[in-house]
Amino acid sequence: MSKDSKYVIGIDMGGTKVLAGIVDKDHAVLSRAKVATDTSSLEQITNCLVGAVKEALETASVELSEVSAIGIGCPGPLDVERGEIVGSPNLGLDVIPVRKMLKEAFDKPVAVGNDVNTGTYGEVVMGAGQGYRNVVGLFPGTGLGGGIVIDGQLVQGSHGNAGEIGHMIIQPGGPMCGCGQRGCAEALVSRSAIAKELAGLAAAGKAPVILKLAGTDLKKIKSGVILKAIRQGDENAERVVRRAAKKMGRTMANCVNMLNPDLVILGGGLVEKLGSWYVDIAEASMRKYAMSVLVKDVKVVEAQLGDDAVLQGAAALAAKLA
Amino acid sequence: MSKDSKYVIGIDMGGTKVLAGIVDKDHAVLSRAKVATDTSSLEQITNCLVGAVKEALETASVELSEVSAIGIGCPGPLDVERGEIVGSPNLGLDVIPVRKMLKEAFDKPVAVGNDVNTGTYGEVVMGAGQGYRNVVGLFPGTGLGGGIVIDGQLVQGSHGNAGEIGHMIIQPGGPMCGCGQRGCAEALVSRSAIAKELAGLAAAGKAPVILKLAGTDLKKIKSGVILKAIRQGDENAERVVRRAAKKMGRTMANCVNMLNPDLVILGGGLVEKLGSWYVDIAEASMRKYAMSVLVKDVKVVEAQLGDDAVLQGAAALAAKLA
Repeated sequence: MSKDSKYVIGIDMGGTKVLAGIVDKDHAVLSRAKVATDTSSLEQITNCLVGAVKEALETASVELSEVSAIGIGCPGPLDVERGEIVGSPNLGLDVIPVRKMLKEAFDKPVAVGNDVNTGTYGEVVMGAGQGYRNVVGLFPGTGLGGGIVIDGQLVQGSHGNAGEIGHMIIQPGGPMCGCGQRGCAEALVSRSAIAKELAGLAAAGKAPVILKLAGTDLKKIKSGVILKAIRQGDENAERVVRRAAKKMGRTMANCVNMLNPDLVILGGGLVEKLGSWYVDIAEASMRKYAMSVLVKDVKVVEAQLGDDAVLQGAAALAAKLA
Repeated sequence: MSKDSKYVIGIDMGGTKVLAGIVDKDHAVLSRAKVATDTSSLEQITNCLVGAVKEALETASVELSEVSAIGIGCPGPLDVERGEIVGSPNLGLDVIPVRKMLKEAFDKPVAVGNDVNTGTYGEVVMGAGQGYRNVVGLFPGTGLGGGIVIDGQLVQGSHGNAGEIGHMIIQPGGPMCGCGQRGCAEALVSRSAIAKELAGLAAAGKAPVILKLAGTDLKKIKSGVILKAIRQGDENAERVVRRAAKKMGRTMANCVNMLNPDLVILGGGLVEKLGSWYVDIAEASMRKYAMSVLVKDVKVVEAQLGDDAVLQGAAALAAKLA
């Protein structure tokens, strides 16, 4: 960064909210501003992004002139070279030129990254991955997001769409995935995949706690409900989650064999709720399925930054432009 | 490189032969020297390495003083930081300190890499991958070797053992792999895996051409025999190879989803013999199983460098030290 630009802006652009933050050279977040995402038009999206950034600047009492660059983590698929979101199902628009939008509003260089990639990078810069050079991040929730850092650098791939570890096919002919394939890791280990099985069990009267807490509605079987069912002794529920955690371990093993990382970070809603119980099962399974010479020095930890991960990663990508 | 060191040395250290070459700044190989590998002791290994290097220097009429660094590609598992091969089953010795051996003999910096990784890097520097930044290399033969290049840099991982794509488990409960797991890609797509199935078919009288050419001995069912069996209309043999090629495509798809590469390079004995027939089947399967947004710009090509790939990659790693 040049002498008079002491800050960068990090933005986490999600389907429901935009979170913007002002971040200093030491990765400290000076302010945060949250705005509900309105994807009804490109203009509305611009308004959300610009509104969140302006509010974050104001809250931190930072002038735009003190900012060297902006980073944004957003849902893929991306064309990072053009700085565009291309055909994201969650945002409902064909092309969203986020770099152009931000550049026109603030006239700063703009770094663009996929949200999960950016979040993984955030964890490496300021969270659970500090001090590690080769890191795989896996975030089971509605889907299964992934991110990869090699030699300290975020792996974006040729268009910014690397890290789709959730769509690694680990069980040919397995359950249908949202992407159209069968047997993707996401279709086996995500919270949605678990909820689908649990709803079936609840409907069959074989998961009484799930039935009591959430009925048979997939969408109501959130991570918190799953935790309660396990705690309250719903044996079939526990079995389903344990099996999913083992398959997560197999997914982690495949990543370990491919990339020889030092660290695997697990995060996302399911991990936040189930904590070390889940992580330990996944880790044991990883150690069983990975090559011993590759897995022996790998650590497995929980993500630390929660809602700040993408913002931090986006800011760190911005700092590299400055 | 410094002004007076115009060359680097690249070494391909295999279980049966050591190939050393003198390489100039433009990656041109000025000389090659081949020595049979004698792994009876560390001293003998040193003699092989030193002998091959000295012969290559002599043939090229290059003085050691004109050499800036040495690179060596060798069978893993490695500890790249220490520059050692650790417990390689093919070489029969516990620890082989290749960097120390070469440094003591020639007093030059030594870059060490796994052979397949180094070969993939060689293809990117001077072969089929020239001009590509994000590349996955897959080499089906006795095993299934893999290599990864991201942003133009070889991915070695934390200990130099990245790229074990052959041990990605793609079919849980599938056939036993040499590594002890079941359903690794290697156990499904390698020439050895194909030979196992073909020997079974031959024994059952269902692969007449294989039976005629190689009997039922796995080791005699080489890539050339497989090619002949397909050419001479051995339908079951063709079916087996086609199925293996499709599984190779699924393996490639998993790599594409993880890494968003521009290019996949296929090489090794099986690909050299079966050529575009094999590559086309694998590529079609990759396109079927990978996410469309990730696979649409990926090219698939055959490796070009053959026996020079590791030597070239090792020399290129050495050039980065200089």
